[in-house]
Amino acid sequence: MDDLYIQVKRFVEPESVAMIGVSSRTGPGSFNGMENLIACGYRGRIYAVNPRGGEILGVKVYPTVTDIPEVVDLAVISTPRGAVPGIVRECVARGIRAVAIITQGFADADQEGKKMQAGIIEAIRGTGTRVVGPNTLGMVNSFADFNTSFVTFTNRPAANGVICQSGIFMAGALDFTAGAGIGIDIGNTADIDFADVLTYFERESRVRVVNLHMEGLKEGRRFMEAARRVARVKPVLCLKTGRSEEGARAASSHSGSLAGEDAVYGAAFRQAGVIRVNNVGEMNELNKTFMTYSSMPGKRVAIVTISGGAGIALVDALSRQGLELAEFSRETLDALAGVYPQWMEVGNPADIWPAGMSKGYLPIIRLALEKVMEDPGVDAVACITPSYLEPDRDPLDVTGALKEAARKYPDKPLAAWIFGPHRRAWAQRLEEEGTIVTYSSPERAALGLGTLYSYHHIFKDAPSPAGIDLPGFDASGIEKLLLTAGERGKEILGMQALDIVSCCGIPTVRSIAASSREEAQRAARELGFPLVMKLDSPDVSHKSEAGGVIVGLKTAGEVAEAFDLIMQSAAEKAPEARVEGVLLQECRSEGAEVIIGARRDQQFGPVMVYGLGGIHTELFRDVSFRVAPVDTGEARAMMAETRSFGILQGARGQEPADLNALAEAVARLSSLVSSFPQIAEIDINPLLAGPGGVVALDCRISLAR
Amino acid sequence: MDDLYIQVKRFVEPESVAMIGVSSRTGPGSFNGMENLIACGYRGRIYAVNPRGGEILGVKVYPTVTDIPEVVDLAVISTPRGAVPGIVRECVARGIRAVAIITQGFADADQEGKKMQAGIIEAIRGTGTRVVGPNTLGMVNSFADFNTSFVTFTNRPAANGVICQSGIFMAGALDFTAGAGIGIDIGNTADIDFADVLTYFERESRVRVVNLHMEGLKEGRRFMEAARRVARVKPVLCLKTGRSEEGARAASSHSGSLAGEDAVYGAAFRQAGVIRVNNVGEMNELNKTFMTYSSMPGKRVAIVTISGGAGIALVDALSRQGLELAEFSRETLDALAGVYPQWMEVGNPADIWPAGMSKGYLPIIRLALEKVMEDPGVDAVACITPSYLEPDRDPLDVTGALKEAARKYPDKPLAAWIFGPHRRAWAQRLEEEGTIVTYSSPERAALGLGTLYSYHHIFKDAPSPAGIDLPGFDASGIEKLLLTAGERGKEILGMQALDIVSCCGIPTVRSIAASSREEAQRAARELGFPLVMKLDSPDVSHKSEAGGVIVGLKTAGEVAEAFDLIMQSAAEKAPEARVEGVLLQECRSEGAEVIIGARRDQQFGPVMVYGLGGIHTELFRDVSFRVAPVDTGEARAMMAETRSFGILQGARGQEPADLNALAEAVARLSSLVSSFPQIAEIDINPLLAGPGGVVALDCRISLAR
Repeated sequence: MDDLYIQVKRFVEPESVAMIGVSSRTGPGSFNGMENLIACGYRGRIYAVNPRGGEILGVKVYPTVTDIPEVVDLAVISTPRGAVPGIVRECVARGIRAVAIITQGFADADQEGKKMQAGIIEAIRGTGTRVVGPNTLGMVNSFADFNTSFVTFTNRPAANGVICQSGIFMAGALDFTAGAGIGIDIGNTADIDFADVLTYFERESRVRVVNLHMEGLKEGRRFMEAARRVARVKPVLCLKTGRSEEGARAASSHSGSLAGEDAVYGAAFRQAGVIRVNNVGEMNELNKTFMTYSSMPGKRVAIVTISGGAGIALVDALSRQGLELAEFSRETLDALAGVYPQWMEVGNPADIWPAGMSKGYLPIIRLALEKVMEDPGVDAVACITPSYLEPDRDPLDVTGALKEAARKYPDKPLAAWIFGPHRRAWAQRLEEEGTIVTYSSPERAALGLGTLYSYHHIFKDAPSPAGIDLPGFDASGIEKLLLTAGERGKEILGMQALDIVSCCGIPTVRSIAASSREEAQRAARELGFPLVMKLDSPDVSHKSEAGGVIVGLKTAGEVAEAFDLIMQSAAEKAPEARVEGVLLQECRSEGAEVIIGARRDQQFGPVMVYGLGGIHTELFRDVSFRVAPVDTGEARAMMAETRSFGILQGARGQEPADLNALAEAVARLSSLVSSFPQIAEIDINPLLAGPGGVVALDCRISLAR
Repeated sequence: MDDLYIQVKRFVEPESVAMIGVSSRTGPGSFNGMENLIACGYRGRIYAVNPRGGEILGVKVYPTVTDIPEVVDLAVISTPRGAVPGIVRECVARGIRAVAIITQGFADADQEGKKMQAGIIEAIRGTGTRVVGPNTLGMVNSFADFNTSFVTFTNRPAANGVICQSGIFMAGALDFTAGAGIGIDIGNTADIDFADVLTYFERESRVRVVNLHMEGLKEGRRFMEAARRVARVKPVLCLKTGRSEEGARAASSHSGSLAGEDAVYGAAFRQAGVIRVNNVGEMNELNKTFMTYSSMPGKRVAIVTISGGAGIALVDALSRQGLELAEFSRETLDALAGVYPQWMEVGNPADIWPAGMSKGYLPIIRLALEKVMEDPGVDAVACITPSYLEPDRDPLDVTGALKEAARKYPDKPLAAWIFGPHRRAWAQRLEEEGTIVTYSSPERAALGLGTLYSYHHIFKDAPSPAGIDLPGFDASGIEKLLLTAGERGKEILGMQALDIVSCCGIPTVRSIAASSREEAQRAARELGFPLVMKLDSPDVSHKSEAGGVIVGLKTAGEVAEAFDLIMQSAAEKAPEARVEGVLLQECRSEGAEVIIGARRDQQFGPVMVYGLGGIHTELFRDVSFRVAPVDTGEARAMMAETRSFGILQGARGQEPADLNALAEAVARLSSLVSSFPQIAEIDINPLLAGPGGVVALDCRISLAR
């Protein structure tokens, strides 16, 4: 079979196309895809297909795809849905390797549609034919004057790629992403998915930034793997919709996506190096940022502004993005002081208005830009200037000076925030050489520079996930324990669960199971006092509520009493439960209680969860996620992401917890769930994290049915 | 003296203006304010003033303001700064009541400038002359063709007011606030301040929305009082810059503002009903929202969309704003089902594309809008449609249908999110009748509708702060205690502090002071066991760290021992401290520990602080603020604002705390700090809040020097 690059390339750079189901209606409002394809200047061979035959727009119409005298590179189907499965089979039979299904009404619709979509997948399985859609506008390639959309729109050959699940991101690309160089609306993603197109974009050098509009994923890990590879060489921006519960519901009926939990998507994006954007405006301006600026040497920003007030707004925004205000060199300060009024302090932001008003705005901005761009203490410059009138009429028109400065110093981004009613016209002028981005607000300018910095200096500098070396991870021991425990039910609790944790190499509290008073007393002598006693039953997971936990036992007598009490409580409160006895454990309390766990996500498979115990997880939902496996570095990042991290670091005068040991425990647990798919869910709760290390006090495992 | 309305009106609707310091340079780039004033069509009398005399632009130039043959309504000064104080004195002497000082270099600059600004204030004191500025573009009144700006800009008579501290919000108003009906750049606010102009806007009926750009306030309470009054009759939007530490520093050098703590500003805005916006884009679109829509009957929103994917983004955004997705009536559902393809589910969002493609987009959108606007279950409609081509060329142009629907149903907002490259042109068309707002993103559309709803239904429905009736508030007792304690130092701790709290009517823990072993034992017998003993010293505020707290005393013997121990620790760890003995208190532990306190803010005076104790305040800074006094309703809102509120409400299976008692304690404490300015700071820490009420366990008061 062809490699993935070739498979996808056929969709966007075909030498011949069959337009199947083309209508004889043409002209505005007819939504005739073939008419648009011709109009956009496509230079390949076009064949029309419609059982009625004849001729449309000067193109001969074939009754079926089989009648076309060549095997076309691409078939584009826009017939009513009932005809689609048959036509796909015809395409396969004819040896066509790329089929785009424009028609709606499949997984995005009723049961019948879902069945039909499944049938299409069945029809192409193993044939080498790939499908884009259904429910798509198809493809656009502005480098090749190619566009299958039935909606007419304007575009430009931007140096970017677009992968979307809603056609508006293709038809509206000029707004959302300053145009789409190459775009694929993957629609219902019945076959061709994000990962496929990402792999194509990885090798397509005309694409310098990739923009994703995502409603949901089917194969989360495949996406992550592809995205991480691409993100190493070009930025990948992603707008994920369906974040709210209501939105997720709407998404699943729109493209038949599985929306999944937003926090898990967030974790996966972070792990893969995908830059998540929150709205279409951010996508637009970040996309332009990456198309325009190659990098940003450091994080020190200079501000040149016509307005002190506007400068303050930008200072606020830069500080929220973690960027720094540059300190100007002596030379820069002196140069500014030479033109400023005497009473004015010189610094960053450089408020050039008073000087500009008396000495001319244009010469002063030219001087200021020259000086700060040259200043070795400055890594980027943000310039704030107004558009009160149209550029040609405005005495404050300094677009020329800005472009000049950007040309002269290509290694430092020169960003502009233009305010005022004519900013579109000014922006167009400023951006025509592709050297300056004009942002719509101080917040966006700061976001642009901040993201540029962090992509090049933080993400790209980050090591790849480490191969995880886990001495003492006893896989065969775990295998056996799971087998034995699994015979007794779906839940593994108490001693069995702790034994599995121990086989992972995670320290567990010393515990002994006892099924009688006497055994309990013997165990107590072996463990030493004080002790905790817990009910041991595979059927009772909330032991405290069933009166099944007694702490602070100090003598053999207390142990005997406690045994009787727990047995009595269990008999009363959980009469149906199988009771195996009790578990005796040392009393441990040195450190903070954390919860580490894992569960299986429909899109991403095993996902790790970390949180500080108590109210932090229960009430504040202060937890973090990662797709497993995670190495210790990623585990540290998980902890640092929670608001309560300060507590482990030693806030409130306590000794900091051993974070290395904690990170290792998370990594070991992640290895467990990655290696043993029979584990559906696991929680070590609590894991005590203290200065001397970690110790698991309790664990609960659910097996997959 | 004239009332405030008349005083401010002279600045924006003068019948005669003296332009003092006008330059003979004219034409583009000359920044000649008089030239602009003439060009904008001002119909009042203009006098130029310049010692050189002669004539400028056909206007006779008088050497001084005294030479002008009439007492003008307004003088606008733009001479070099050195001349300004003398000219202001001349204006006062001539009886001119309104003076705008354009010149920079006063409190915004060096020490010399600050002194000169103080001199100007001195010169007008008690004279009836008011000053706008210095450091301002002056005033614009587009209803009266009046504009003092030396910068040329375009504007339109929008039904709004602008008060700003940076001229860009006036000159750039067409961008920031869709124009400025009446605008005043109050610059350094040496005299005329936000509160003055707000009071003018309250009565100015052409102003329907007020927009503030604020760098800092001088008199916080005067602002709140005016803003609250105005906000009851028209929305007040505020963009506060200088939020970050760096931004605050920049602000103080820009307009000489005191930026103050951002969280306190936030609290003051909330209390005054001021709608805080986060950036200029939000200001723009919220201003338009309030200029366009009179209200919104409820919070159920219908979405009519060309794109399922875009609909999902809007659902997400609406849900974040607390709005609801409307459930369509049977009639609406049937009407849509009648035109939808059979396989498509009907609901909200109404994704009309499949129907529009087969039956024509225009008739289908017309039908959908008609049905949802009529639907009694719908309170507002948001329509999503693209601008792929210019409106006249685009077969998807539905601007007419939208305007028609908005005209026909004026009581429900019809909001539009237009995407695509031509949205400006489409927006212009949609907005020309003043019935539709075109938002730039789904987030902004949701923000617009959400804010419209909450202004009309939450803010306006909220009761005014209640008169606080506090039986048992013993003001004269407090007075006496403060006097006695004040003689002993700046800090009041222990028994004295608790006694003051008790006089406020806030329950305090039963406590007895004892200065010897024997007294301590006697006190113990009176209080009963178990007990807590605390060091009593006006010089030790962190008692625990000085070994000054022992808990769980159960016998008279333990009390004697504890007394010796505490005395010994105090002697060792705080040898300089005056030791008065110990305080014996009942052991109380029923409930959560909260901190309630107050401190004095430079701008706002006494400010209340509330937080749940422990890590919540120390580590998470999970605290809320209000400007004192607060009634119990406001105190409840303070608690509800913290993330940890759930704990008091009974999360984790505990009985909820008595929130009424807690709110009352906050109100009483706020009354204390409002009535006794000698209290600089007070903290009740902890206040135990349990199901049975509250009790103060400890308190610390700092007196103002």
